[in-house]
Amino acid sequence: MTAKAPSERTRVKRAFVRATYERDAVYAILDAQPLCHVGYVKDGHPFVTPTFQWREGDRVYWHGSSASQALRAAKSARVCLTVSCLDGFVMARSGFHHSVNYRSAMILGEAEIVEDEAAKVKHLDTFIDGLFPGQSGLIRPMNTQEKKATTVLSMPIEEYSAKIRGEGPIDDEEDYALPIWAGVIPVHQTVGEPIPDPRNLPDVEMPDCIRDFRMAQAQQWDPAKD
Amino acid sequence: MTAKAPSERTRVKRAFVRATYERDAVYAILDAQPLCHVGYVKDGHPFVTPTFQWREGDRVYWHGSSASQALRAAKSARVCLTVSCLDGFVMARSGFHHSVNYRSAMILGEAEIVEDEAAKVKHLDTFIDGLFPGQSGLIRPMNTQEKKATTVLSMPIEEYSAKIRGEGPIDDEEDYALPIWAGVIPVHQTVGEPIPDPRNLPDVEMPDCIRDFRMAQAQQWDPAKD
Repeated sequence: MTAKAPSERTRVKRAFVRATYERDAVYAILDAQPLCHVGYVKDGHPFVTPTFQWREGDRVYWHGSSASQALRAAKSARVCLTVSCLDGFVMARSGFHHSVNYRSAMILGEAEIVEDEAAKVKHLDTFIDGLFPGQSGLIRPMNTQEKKATTVLSMPIEEYSAKIRGEGPIDDEEDYALPIWAGVIPVHQTVGEPIPDPRNLPDVEMPDCIRDFRMAQAQQWDPAKD
Repeated sequence: MTAKAPSERTRVKRAFVRATYERDAVYAILDAQPLCHVGYVKDGHPFVTPTFQWREGDRVYWHGSSASQALRAAKSARVCLTVSCLDGFVMARSGFHHSVNYRSAMILGEAEIVEDEAAKVKHLDTFIDGLFPGQSGLIRPMNTQEKKATTVLSMPIEEYSAKIRGEGPIDDEEDYALPIWAGVIPVHQTVGEPIPDPRNLPDVEMPDCIRDFRMAQAQQWDPAKD
């Protein structure tokens, strides 16, 4: 991982974690976790709103209601889109060295609106099919009013950074002699058995794309590989 | 849930979710999920950084390295601290009504630094013991250098809002006649078996506070209760 930071303001200045400017690392984080937090500035004040993102090639997309305050403020404005996955609690022999295993990616840029209606629908289908392959073809198509009410935003993945920690505790050398338990508590995001809507028609079956859906799992720390 | 929005800028303008300005709802979200995203403005650009938060009474705290760019920028500056829990994917009969079950809380304010060294240590102990009761007494105490290197920030929970969705799909009435599976895929954040550091002393046992640690679980949608 020797890529240079795309810009000074995305250069990770300090971290006891691995900072990377490799596109592949950023893409892997975006592809693993749809939940993101978009930051924007309104009247000089920062706002941070959770939403879902998806990636198409070297661009990141998100969407929302056309009436949404957060989306209207983000139009042609500077935004910061951050995706974070919590992978574990790192329990060390001192409080100072307690840490977290995680993957996070931050993308800075200016949000652009997808104006073309057909393109908008195509992007939304890509979003839904990215999570649930084929689902866009199983559901009722968007109507004109819904297209109007939905705004799709995107920005190029140009200014970005990622931070990844996936290790065991790293303690001060003298602390290893202390009789204190250290290690990692892994954290997973998993899905449970889908809960059917009682109003489903009696002969409707759950499609494979819903039955087989899984959240991407983190590679957990393996001390044997250290 | 009839509380008034604490300010115009935290009033949830529109949402197909339940917006609430009840303190208890915000507190419950903060207490359930340590991961937060802090937004701040630097040179007119928003930045969103993941970190851990904890609550003490009517204040929210977070910490980090005293050398951290994000923490230095947040000092006495306007910040937005957002906590989001993803609880489920809501699969509807149209793409437009696909949704997410989640709980999110947003707090706006000015970050204040905890200057007093003894207070700083006390807050950090409260943080660690909040997750792992008693852990602060089991580990090696902070030394002077570590205290200096750690910055604790806080802000009052005064301007805030919460959004909660924990329901099944809500489709257009005519779409219920379509042979499309709808329902909710629950999402859970769970912990796995703790992984011991191979450098643990041979007779050291895992403390109960680590063995018993669990992430708070969301109340999932129960159609029988609708």
